[in-house]
Amino acid sequence: MAGRDELTSLRSPRVKAARRLAKRAFRRRERRFLAEGPQAVREALEIPGGLAELFTTAEAESRHPELVTAAEQAGVPVLRVSGEVMAELAQTVTPQGLLAVCEFIDVPLSTALESRPRLVTVLAHVRDPGNAGTVLRTADAAGSESVIFTDASVDPYNGKCVRASAGSLFHLPVVVGPRFETLIADLKQAGLTVLAADGAGKRTLDEAIDDGLLAEPTAWVFGNEAWGLPDEILRHVDDVVRVPIYGRAESLNLATAAAVCLYASARAQRTS
Amino acid sequence: MAGRDELTSLRSPRVKAARRLAKRAFRRRERRFLAEGPQAVREALEIPGGLAELFTTAEAESRHPELVTAAEQAGVPVLRVSGEVMAELAQTVTPQGLLAVCEFIDVPLSTALESRPRLVTVLAHVRDPGNAGTVLRTADAAGSESVIFTDASVDPYNGKCVRASAGSLFHLPVVVGPRFETLIADLKQAGLTVLAADGAGKRTLDEAIDDGLLAEPTAWVFGNEAWGLPDEILRHVDDVVRVPIYGRAESLNLATAAAVCLYASARAQRTS
Repeated sequence: MAGRDELTSLRSPRVKAARRLAKRAFRRRERRFLAEGPQAVREALEIPGGLAELFTTAEAESRHPELVTAAEQAGVPVLRVSGEVMAELAQTVTPQGLLAVCEFIDVPLSTALESRPRLVTVLAHVRDPGNAGTVLRTADAAGSESVIFTDASVDPYNGKCVRASAGSLFHLPVVVGPRFETLIADLKQAGLTVLAADGAGKRTLDEAIDDGLLAEPTAWVFGNEAWGLPDEILRHVDDVVRVPIYGRAESLNLATAAAVCLYASARAQRTS
Repeated sequence: MAGRDELTSLRSPRVKAARRLAKRAFRRRERRFLAEGPQAVREALEIPGGLAELFTTAEAESRHPELVTAAEQAGVPVLRVSGEVMAELAQTVTPQGLLAVCEFIDVPLSTALESRPRLVTVLAHVRDPGNAGTVLRTADAAGSESVIFTDASVDPYNGKCVRASAGSLFHLPVVVGPRFETLIADLKQAGLTVLAADGAGKRTLDEAIDDGLLAEPTAWVFGNEAWGLPDEILRHVDDVVRVPIYGRAESLNLATAAAVCLYASARAQRTS
């Protein structure tokens, strides 16, 4: 470990290949993405074949020798780089000195649905990667068994989304790219009641709870923060539900609305 | 309106005075803060004496003539500035051309408590202004009747907090700066059960609901995202409650945890 060569040039082919993964087109081609920090490395190591390459700095190696050893034992190439190169790769202000190149981990929709999940989260037309990552983290916490990003949503492998998910991207089956038109039918076919969360809903979340609706296996659909869900989606779901606003706020942000809806389902499914 | 002079220099005394309000020390001295965009101007105009000065661009004046007229009719100085000066003042990437200089609107703790509120939100040791603003917006939506920032928390008049609150800073009584040591006693004195939200809590939120605890008038205390609430606080509250984690996420972020707790109280207080 101590004798490892250090890559100090941004023009090194391995560094250039990793840097390109900041762009969606290259991620798609290579089916790999970047995840920074010791937690991400730990998560990726738990998935067989999940960690493709590990970039480290000398300092991070001495702080996390167990992770470097585990990567080497798993046959993962470990590349030591200078602090300057790491700063370029990590896309964060204070890089943590460990950067994982990970294999894509999304699964087909059929795989996510075959275990007959009781709580599923759908992100439709969500464009802000930070919001998407926070919803992913919240969905994981609330016991959602899968998170589905429709084709019009942000890429879950976007660096900001990976960071905001705080590891949850690795925790539960993520589905990428289904078209909404066919997705709703597939969700219903899997026995799920499809509920859209939207300020335009006639039924409040409390009414949905009181009516026993949330005790059913449910797929929650969350839309774009600025303009909600388009009519074509609202028409095809089983119901449109709004989180009640008791004060004078005009709306809730996407991640907080999702938290309230998903935790309401978690409670309803466990107490009914 | 058309004949108004345009200030084009960052060295103009009025512009310099407004720019200084980006710093907390100057805000405290002047007891004024900055809020950007048409919504903020509308909110500030609704509070008698709330709008101290209005900076506009020619373009924004033609887009929002009603706001400029309303400000002038209220005797508020309207200052037209160039796009370049507005960009400096607004601290945002795409400034909206309207910037309100507002008078501080926080109230003493005794004022916030004298109406015997049933739901109060306390931010203790919260340092990230974006998180604080999102909690303020969520508290407003959930019907919290007051939001209290302790002396160790971020300044609610920080530009990022004002923006993230999406107008809610103007909607409900905000209290700034009480020390936690005396605050808890004052909240209890006002008939409030003081609950801390913390991952270390023995009682889950569901247990608190089932036990009828949330039907009581409640002050929720939320702490710093990274290290939760200090022991000195946890010892003095009536109970420490944790939001259950059903999946593999390690924790929830501050704003989503607050959303789940506050909406649980809103529902419990309305259905019991």
